[in-house]
Amino acid sequence: MPRYRLTIAYDGTDFHGWQRQEPPGKAPLRTVQGVLDDAVRLVVREPVSVVGASRTDAGVHALGQVAAFTASTRIPTDKLPMAISSRLPRDVQVRSSSLAPDDFDPISDAISKSYRYTIAYPTSRPRIAPLFDRNFVYWQVHQLDVAAMNAAAQRLIGEHDFTALAHAVNTRESPVRRIHSCVVATPSPGRITIDVAGNGFLYNMVRVIAGTLVDVGRGQKAPDEVSEIVASRDRTRAGQTLPPQGLCLRWIHYGGKDVLSEP
Amino acid sequence: MPRYRLTIAYDGTDFHGWQRQEPPGKAPLRTVQGVLDDAVRLVVREPVSVVGASRTDAGVHALGQVAAFTASTRIPTDKLPMAISSRLPRDVQVRSSSLAPDDFDPISDAISKSYRYTIAYPTSRPRIAPLFDRNFVYWQVHQLDVAAMNAAAQRLIGEHDFTALAHAVNTRESPVRRIHSCVVATPSPGRITIDVAGNGFLYNMVRVIAGTLVDVGRGQKAPDEVSEIVASRDRTRAGQTLPPQGLCLRWIHYGGKDVLSEP
Repeated sequence: MPRYRLTIAYDGTDFHGWQRQEPPGKAPLRTVQGVLDDAVRLVVREPVSVVGASRTDAGVHALGQVAAFTASTRIPTDKLPMAISSRLPRDVQVRSSSLAPDDFDPISDAISKSYRYTIAYPTSRPRIAPLFDRNFVYWQVHQLDVAAMNAAAQRLIGEHDFTALAHAVNTRESPVRRIHSCVVATPSPGRITIDVAGNGFLYNMVRVIAGTLVDVGRGQKAPDEVSEIVASRDRTRAGQTLPPQGLCLRWIHYGGKDVLSEP
Repeated sequence: MPRYRLTIAYDGTDFHGWQRQEPPGKAPLRTVQGVLDDAVRLVVREPVSVVGASRTDAGVHALGQVAAFTASTRIPTDKLPMAISSRLPRDVQVRSSSLAPDDFDPISDAISKSYRYTIAYPTSRPRIAPLFDRNFVYWQVHQLDVAAMNAAAQRLIGEHDFTALAHAVNTRESPVRRIHSCVVATPSPGRITIDVAGNGFLYNMVRVIAGTLVDVGRGQKAPDEVSEIVASRDRTRAGQTLPPQGLCLRWIHYGGKDVLSEP
């Protein structure tokens, strides 16, 4: 049976995260995987379980989540996005699809991922919180030094043990990751973005990186201190874990292994 | 007692419009006026009824709605936005406040108002509907001729009987309005905005204007035809009423009558 790769976008606001959750004796929680499994099942007319590359938390968004499933269907691969999306709620979309090798694993085959964390700050008095994009930014009232934040971001690049910048959940997992790039920018007045790409991320790692860079932007930490924090492997030295709604999974790369030509 | 003018912004998605609605024998509907009355009452510690300049429909947004109330409070005028906003839900905000003349009437004193209607169209295949701003745009799949839409928009400028471009509700009200400007623009790929300012608007007038300009953009009506449609006073000749979520009340001007210096 063919294996399909999907690129998925969602507004995480009203989801209890990516992963299917069915608490015993209770109604299943609304999750992206849950609504996607239901929609794909209606299209391919057999039960499927879609495997996602990243188990995003409640409130976290995605433009380029990747998921895979194995099923037989007569629907052409390029028609799958519309066929599945028409059976999805308005806050989740299949944006593209392709055939993948039989053994394609969205989690372990991923070569690099990129996340964006968006911060909002006031540009006038009185300080007015974000309104229309309030579910997509972290609102804080401080003026942040973006140059200092970028200097600190450079200290994260390369292969490091990121224990200090993540929540410990799986102690058997190696805490070593490679950060390819980390760029702080101001795309519009009142908004700061932190784009970070790497070969993988520990639990809550991007949100702790964002919290640590905000401390630098406020002058509470020097840019150089970030290297010491990483080396310390001490979570208490890093910044706070910023809230989920500022986080968006932007893309995942697979180095060509994911995409096959149509047979 | 002093009279206060407030500038109010809201995300209309989860509101049953501006105007307080209390159906007999049922729970009151969630309206902007309703939550605002409640918040102002908590601040000034007496019952108030806030009068709004524009009774926006369910799903319609505002950046610069204007409202007024009369009450005595020791809170300085410039602190009122924060005091009231802190008692409002996250989808409505008081953005500024000022003292107004005792007889200030936000409805009849308004000199001009400006609305924006935002249209989304696909920029690639497959056609992907808006996700993060889906509650703030009207999604349609046609490529629109913006130059033709602008040419048509010019036909609306000036003083006209706009019966053809509105829903008849109050037959005692004059259907004559003056449009000051109407500009169609493409602020970003996949988005078209129609900004229209005038001395007042009939019921659903901006949404019918937007629907008529979309017909022109699709080539179904010639720009010149818009003058004929206005002259005909025939609603059936204009375009459809576009849905509420694309509409936003941007600002209302009062020619200085609204703002007094602090006593």
